[in-house]
Amino acid sequence: MIAQRQPASGLRPLDDALADLLTHAQPLAGSQTVSTFDADGRVLAQDCVSALQVPPQDNSSMDGYAVRSVEIADEGVLMPVSQRIPAGADPGPLTPGSAARIFTGAPIPAGADAVVMQEDCELVAPGSATAAQGLQTVRIGRVPQAGQWIRRAGEDVTRGAVVLARGQRLGPADIGLAANIGLDRLQVARRPRVALFSTGDELVMPGAVPPEQMKPGTIYNSNRYFLRSLLQRLGCELTDLGVVPDRRDATVDALRGAALDHDLILTSGGVSVGEEDHIKPAVESLGRLDFWQIAMKPGKPFAYGKVGAAHFIGLPGNPVSSFVTFVLLVRPFVLKLQGATAYAPHGVTMTAHFDWSGDKRREFLRVRRNADGGLDLFPNQSSGVLTSASWADGLVDNPAGRAISRGDAVRFIALAELLQ
Amino acid sequence: MIAQRQPASGLRPLDDALADLLTHAQPLAGSQTVSTFDADGRVLAQDCVSALQVPPQDNSSMDGYAVRSVEIADEGVLMPVSQRIPAGADPGPLTPGSAARIFTGAPIPAGADAVVMQEDCELVAPGSATAAQGLQTVRIGRVPQAGQWIRRAGEDVTRGAVVLARGQRLGPADIGLAANIGLDRLQVARRPRVALFSTGDELVMPGAVPPEQMKPGTIYNSNRYFLRSLLQRLGCELTDLGVVPDRRDATVDALRGAALDHDLILTSGGVSVGEEDHIKPAVESLGRLDFWQIAMKPGKPFAYGKVGAAHFIGLPGNPVSSFVTFVLLVRPFVLKLQGATAYAPHGVTMTAHFDWSGDKRREFLRVRRNADGGLDLFPNQSSGVLTSASWADGLVDNPAGRAISRGDAVRFIALAELLQ
Repeated sequence: MIAQRQPASGLRPLDDALADLLTHAQPLAGSQTVSTFDADGRVLAQDCVSALQVPPQDNSSMDGYAVRSVEIADEGVLMPVSQRIPAGADPGPLTPGSAARIFTGAPIPAGADAVVMQEDCELVAPGSATAAQGLQTVRIGRVPQAGQWIRRAGEDVTRGAVVLARGQRLGPADIGLAANIGLDRLQVARRPRVALFSTGDELVMPGAVPPEQMKPGTIYNSNRYFLRSLLQRLGCELTDLGVVPDRRDATVDALRGAALDHDLILTSGGVSVGEEDHIKPAVESLGRLDFWQIAMKPGKPFAYGKVGAAHFIGLPGNPVSSFVTFVLLVRPFVLKLQGATAYAPHGVTMTAHFDWSGDKRREFLRVRRNADGGLDLFPNQSSGVLTSASWADGLVDNPAGRAISRGDAVRFIALAELLQ
Repeated sequence: MIAQRQPASGLRPLDDALADLLTHAQPLAGSQTVSTFDADGRVLAQDCVSALQVPPQDNSSMDGYAVRSVEIADEGVLMPVSQRIPAGADPGPLTPGSAARIFTGAPIPAGADAVVMQEDCELVAPGSATAAQGLQTVRIGRVPQAGQWIRRAGEDVTRGAVVLARGQRLGPADIGLAANIGLDRLQVARRPRVALFSTGDELVMPGAVPPEQMKPGTIYNSNRYFLRSLLQRLGCELTDLGVVPDRRDATVDALRGAALDHDLILTSGGVSVGEEDHIKPAVESLGRLDFWQIAMKPGKPFAYGKVGAAHFIGLPGNPVSSFVTFVLLVRPFVLKLQGATAYAPHGVTMTAHFDWSGDKRREFLRVRRNADGGLDLFPNQSSGVLTSASWADGLVDNPAGRAISRGDAVRFIALAELLQ
């Protein structure tokens, strides 16, 4: 064992590290067909092309009366109600000189070019001629403009349009849109199979030992909990290997086994440069490992490699470092494995309601939006303080070397965007 | 059947409608205990109080050497390495005049008051006295400040602290935090049981009829798809009753059955004022119904009532109206049923990169953030055009009567916040 001196210049910019990481995230082979009901959160492996137009015909956007607008020059015109068109009907043409009772979503009858909403109409005692035909009479209380309250066929979707594109990650509205064009099944990327383990002999599983009996030097494993949730939110199929002992042989065994049937092996802990960390030699003995010091805070140490055909990503063990590197690096990686074409979070400009000294590394400060439209800072920004990530509703992306003064504009990334 | 005239003044402000609606959302009786692993998205039914402090002891935040800072007045001091402290160890006191090899997360030995990071240290050939004891020698290359690279016991969590409060909706970091204090099980609100159905004889289920065979006047049911996803994202236990025929008796039967074992019955369609809509009389025959015209666009018609002990909410049938009223009204309602204490989405101020004429009603415009940091508007804001909600990544909350000019500051609500 010799000295572990490292050049300070070895720190890698985050954007550079992310770009490098993403070159390795080639979309997984294979897709699966799922019910559109079950496609929420999945990434499309097909373009969704519409075989029909939506809406299929011109239809009414109001409950009211369909008319020929040229026949109503003044308020108060009386007209027989010649037909009744509920939604789902297939009406005949509108008899000249008459109105058609019509409901929201119902097809506009041929000849009609406007709908008068029912709030502007009144049914009246019929004239004798109309009554003889058994028809009702309506007083049209407002002069219609041609086209009013009509939704045009195809205004939402035209026939042949690509409604949703391959690589799009589906949310509720997208699922609705697929249903809208009649797709009850969708081809989506298969779920990435991810094996997760933590390293660290100090880690105890909650439930295994009650708080009052925890031995000195031991702590509960929290990373495993949030990493599981984060992976599941991204659509991964998860194998939780628990805590692997801090020994080379145990680490090698865990890696070798996991590589057989997983796309990605994710670990937390064991990636700093101390000799207690067995991840590096273990991965290198089975494949290869790039070991990065990223110029970000929290989250400096990060490792990417391969174990057999499986990707390997090693996250730092500090909870906040692990959380932040996951959402900024692993999340886009896992989405790109599924063929997703968009994974960068949107930042918005907000106002800092705090002072901050800055750091020589780019920082991701845990902040929360306050009632005055500004951002409050969690007082303890230590990478060990997981409370900061629970308290926060977003991160301030603060450039290297920048001090923040109250009132400054800063770049805010909502956690809601990173956790979806 | 007489006239259906309605006063224009009958429109209700959204905030007023929401406040009224929420008075009915009393938290459901009953909670359940789940594994902390499975608590993501659930609402806490207990305060989580810490029985320990986190971290449990002062510990190192770096790999390096623990020292007494007063013993190192200058760079280059040589010290024997008197012990080695990995994470998880329970070290004895630091021998005066020596350094302890220490790793990230390992407890600080009694007597030490600083850690020198290993990048500032170098192992050197030992002096004869040290070598005789079989100890290594380290050159401390930097003068430490007292306290450096030490995480203090309890800096994250103090013993007895309420780490997570009853009513909080749990996300990944919260789950990690619960694990951090040793909680492997959490008491959470039970899932609201929701029955969902649509009304409308024009509705066809995707898969039931292929696009080229759709009869005139019929459309695919899209609302059912996104409403299912939205309810599931909120932790609901869902019963999907499908499409109920547009008849009073069928509607009454569906409602009566659903009321027996659900907390909420949610419908879309059938809540406008036309006589084709059977929801109103059906609900009233079994319970009571408040029928609101809300001053919002999209989404005017909205109904709240009770069928037996079950809540009833009727959403408009237009897809975008249904989607928007869900995320702005039903979402908070369902979260409050679970005892959640926070459910209002955060708006942020952004710049419109579009012009818009405004409306006499408050609008929720479908917009998307662009690469220039502004907002683009979906060109067709019709409430029938579901494509707008799929395309959008947020809503502009535009006050009644306000025209928007390019460059104006507007209130933006990210869909990510509303879909979580």
